[in-house]
Amino acid sequence: MNTQQTILFHKYGGPEVIEVYEIPLLEPSEDEVRFKVNAFALNRADLLFINGHHYTLPEFPSRIGSEATGIVDKIGKNVTKFKIGEKVTSIPFYTQNHGVQGEYAIVPEIFLTHSPDNLNDVEACSIWMQYLTPYFALIEIGKVQPNEYVLVPAASGSAGLGTLQLLKYAGAKVIATTRTKEKAAFLKKAGADYVVIMDEKSLSKTINEITNNKGVRLIFDPIGGSFLNNYTEVLATNAIIFLYGLLSGEITEVPIVQMVRKNAIIYPYSMFNYVVRPDMLERGKSFILKGIKEGLLHPIIDKIFSFNDTRKAYQYMESNNQKGKIVVKLN
Amino acid sequence: MNTQQTILFHKYGGPEVIEVYEIPLLEPSEDEVRFKVNAFALNRADLLFINGHHYTLPEFPSRIGSEATGIVDKIGKNVTKFKIGEKVTSIPFYTQNHGVQGEYAIVPEIFLTHSPDNLNDVEACSIWMQYLTPYFALIEIGKVQPNEYVLVPAASGSAGLGTLQLLKYAGAKVIATTRTKEKAAFLKKAGADYVVIMDEKSLSKTINEITNNKGVRLIFDPIGGSFLNNYTEVLATNAIIFLYGLLSGEITEVPIVQMVRKNAIIYPYSMFNYVVRPDMLERGKSFILKGIKEGLLHPIIDKIFSFNDTRKAYQYMESNNQKGKIVVKLN
Repeated sequence: MNTQQTILFHKYGGPEVIEVYEIPLLEPSEDEVRFKVNAFALNRADLLFINGHHYTLPEFPSRIGSEATGIVDKIGKNVTKFKIGEKVTSIPFYTQNHGVQGEYAIVPEIFLTHSPDNLNDVEACSIWMQYLTPYFALIEIGKVQPNEYVLVPAASGSAGLGTLQLLKYAGAKVIATTRTKEKAAFLKKAGADYVVIMDEKSLSKTINEITNNKGVRLIFDPIGGSFLNNYTEVLATNAIIFLYGLLSGEITEVPIVQMVRKNAIIYPYSMFNYVVRPDMLERGKSFILKGIKEGLLHPIIDKIFSFNDTRKAYQYMESNNQKGKIVVKLN
Repeated sequence: MNTQQTILFHKYGGPEVIEVYEIPLLEPSEDEVRFKVNAFALNRADLLFINGHHYTLPEFPSRIGSEATGIVDKIGKNVTKFKIGEKVTSIPFYTQNHGVQGEYAIVPEIFLTHSPDNLNDVEACSIWMQYLTPYFALIEIGKVQPNEYVLVPAASGSAGLGTLQLLKYAGAKVIATTRTKEKAAFLKKAGADYVVIMDEKSLSKTINEITNNKGVRLIFDPIGGSFLNNYTEVLATNAIIFLYGLLSGEITEVPIVQMVRKNAIIYPYSMFNYVVRPDMLERGKSFILKGIKEGLLHPIIDKIFSFNDTRKAYQYMESNNQKGKIVVKLN
């Protein structure tokens, strides 16, 4: 029987619960594609999945991971878009049974694309989560307008950087927040129109200055909790507060009075609710692949680890010091 | 100089701060209509306005009130839809300068309708707040479907009863909640499909039973706070939690994980944000006036007070025992 090395976990916990195991090499079902993994990217959602706080729950033992690039080595009988030997990249979806972190991954055809020609494997496995996450929220739901200022808190994480690039590509403007001068300089270089270093400057005041007291309509907030107090007084009419993470670890209160004044809504958001809508996904793929081809979207890689150091890679992610994607390279 | 008796308040507080004063009778401006008030209705928003917790703030001394019925006695030169001697009813809007509680009221033409023929004055002044409030939220924004179950907590208040009638008129079904057996019987009689007496029965369990585990998509919640725990586990996909009051007096936490699972949003809602949109207001007027004409919408009056007892009327409202509208009758 053929086997493969893969990342598994058997109980909830931090990165310490994941390990490399030898498991049987499974066959793709009729709508699935199997590919030999060259590189895979890490995401914060993986950590939530491992510690049991993701909104989808694992069945033990569970594989993990949703973004990988590799070479097709077997296809199901209904698969029409991919051939053996082609280079492919997976699109994140519900990860319970299709974790991609291992020597081989099996993914439904609809959640696979050909890898863009102008990206290497490490970059190619780093595109879909970071660009589709803001795409559905800000382009499809929020319908961002040209030259509109969007608030992007904690902008130096991989989702933040993807959001920044995507908004610039869409013709919008970005007010980024971060915690250090060093990250602020990095964000300026990455294209942010304004960067507010929290604790140094009032975010509300800055937003009012930049927007002539109009405020911000779209907020893409991975922090939540009391961080909302920094901007609920400067919402524009019909504002949408997307909450797509819980970096603060705090309870988020609904600021009802401030929100009613601006007819604002709170939108707890996950790209996993939209990636399953074929029409939206197709539009998202086209939009993003065009941006990559034109060089306007280009994943920033923070650090590359070896397969046996996958646990260390997640521990590094937990330190919150990354600026860009953390990737594991196998080949 | 002509004068009139009117309700005024000079500082924030409870019903004790409002008093009857003699003030000059002002002239309507070119787009306004003045009418002699026969009856006016009380609303919970008035209490928030008086105690400084409404999202619009008064300038002292301030008039109060937004719903009145009476006879037109003077019109501005641009007014075309109303003539002296006609019976009119005001539509609630921003109340700072146009409080209607007094012998005379002055209201912009756009926020006035002719009184429906089949309602007396006490009923006629009780229609717009209670029907437009759920209309904008559930018909225009929520797009309620025929036979869809909608959750209406605290359904025996005037807004709750209006919501119940409006939903039945729109062909939807109503799951009402209340606190006592007596009110439950009243709500059943008023047309609720299901009534859950809180503390006696699990609301979540009941909703799952009624909806075959599909849950509720539209929630029209005037309570907020920890009351959300009673239904966040039984949201349907793409649920909208309208928060249009704060009866609980508690902080409302965003139940992020439960909401992301169902792609739900929190919508702090006020009818005042929609009544200013002429197209929506016109559709709302037509829809509601048709329902009144057909007898499917009929305001339920709880209690009628005299003008000099307006303060007592608000104190009665504060007791939270009303089932329907509280109205003051002048003529």
